[in-house]
Amino acid sequence: MPRTKGDHEARRRDVSAAVWQVMATRGFAGLTLRAVAAELGATTGLLTHYFPTKRALLAYALDLLERRTLARPRRDAGQGLAAFRDALLDILPLTSGATDSNRVWVSSWDAALCDPALTADYARKYAQGRERLRARVAAAQDLGELPPGDPARIAASAQSFVLGLVVQALFDPSAFPPERQVELLDGYLAALTAEAGSDRGGG
Amino acid sequence: MPRTKGDHEARRRDVSAAVWQVMATRGFAGLTLRAVAAELGATTGLLTHYFPTKRALLAYALDLLERRTLARPRRDAGQGLAAFRDALLDILPLTSGATDSNRVWVSSWDAALCDPALTADYARKYAQGRERLRARVAAAQDLGELPPGDPARIAASAQSFVLGLVVQALFDPSAFPPERQVELLDGYLAALTAEAGSDRGGG
Repeated sequence: MPRTKGDHEARRRDVSAAVWQVMATRGFAGLTLRAVAAELGATTGLLTHYFPTKRALLAYALDLLERRTLARPRRDAGQGLAAFRDALLDILPLTSGATDSNRVWVSSWDAALCDPALTADYARKYAQGRERLRARVAAAQDLGELPPGDPARIAASAQSFVLGLVVQALFDPSAFPPERQVELLDGYLAALTAEAGSDRGGG
Repeated sequence: MPRTKGDHEARRRDVSAAVWQVMATRGFAGLTLRAVAAELGATTGLLTHYFPTKRALLAYALDLLERRTLARPRRDAGQGLAAFRDALLDILPLTSGATDSNRVWVSSWDAALCDPALTADYARKYAQGRERLRARVAAAQDLGELPPGDPARIAASAQSFVLGLVVQALFDPSAFPPERQVELLDGYLAALTAEAGSDRGGG
């Protein structure tokens, strides 16, 4: 029987799952055709049909990372400060799926920093992330829930805070279980809120 | 003439400089005997005298990174909140040397997360870093310069903030020049200080 389009799609999903599994456990440093073939239970020869070069495999992996990140479920519980908090919670490794994603992101930084085009692409993505946070900060300010300072500064600061917390939690999950991460985030937000209260009190 | 101990030491310094240069420009992903040999203007054969395996080269590079980090100059401008701020400034990529070091640290995370022993070693180092910050937070609290909350929580939060800021600045140095990094850090500390003021006002 001829192979159908459905077979082809199913095989592509299997390949994607195998690439993801290798990245989540071994990082980009361990992402090789051989490792993906072993994960898939296939020959390296079959894999070269999908990825003729190591560079093609890397490009596929980065694209897969971006697609999975865009497709992940997002919290949408409120507006103003609650929406800002949701956006920050969405970044943290609070579930095993989010831990895998973050593991792959952090792992990809080495490859991305080595390549000027990738560095520029990552810088653009992080700038977009800050812009989305900035809009939520501004909305929270309009509601009087955050201080009247520059929302771009508050967004950049918050993005730094959660990215660093991601790194800490990946290296030391027992010191940074989900409830500790949320506690640290809420402490961070409480300081911002208190700053607003302090400004009002003093002004 | 026989080669002297001085020759040997000079050659080791050259090798270290070449390993460092390769790591700072190409990351751990680009750290190969071939790349170090090219940087040194030597043969790969000579390098195998120093590094019989890729693993030996990686171990040497990680050790070099730790020694350079421990040997770097530190700010020592004050006590209390000023000393806490100094410790955080010491981490940020505010100079080209500090940028290189941070570039190598971030690059090493991929290799470190792949290896359980290295992951544990990094977790231990970051815990030590948090403990040093915790002591400075506690001193600043004793002086009434920081809020009376758990100093370990404030230290973990501050470490997350600066680590994330390092990553942002490496990917986007034009958006995060040194003065912007310092501005963000001072905004972060101002929120902590305001929280202290707010607590006192409400208590």
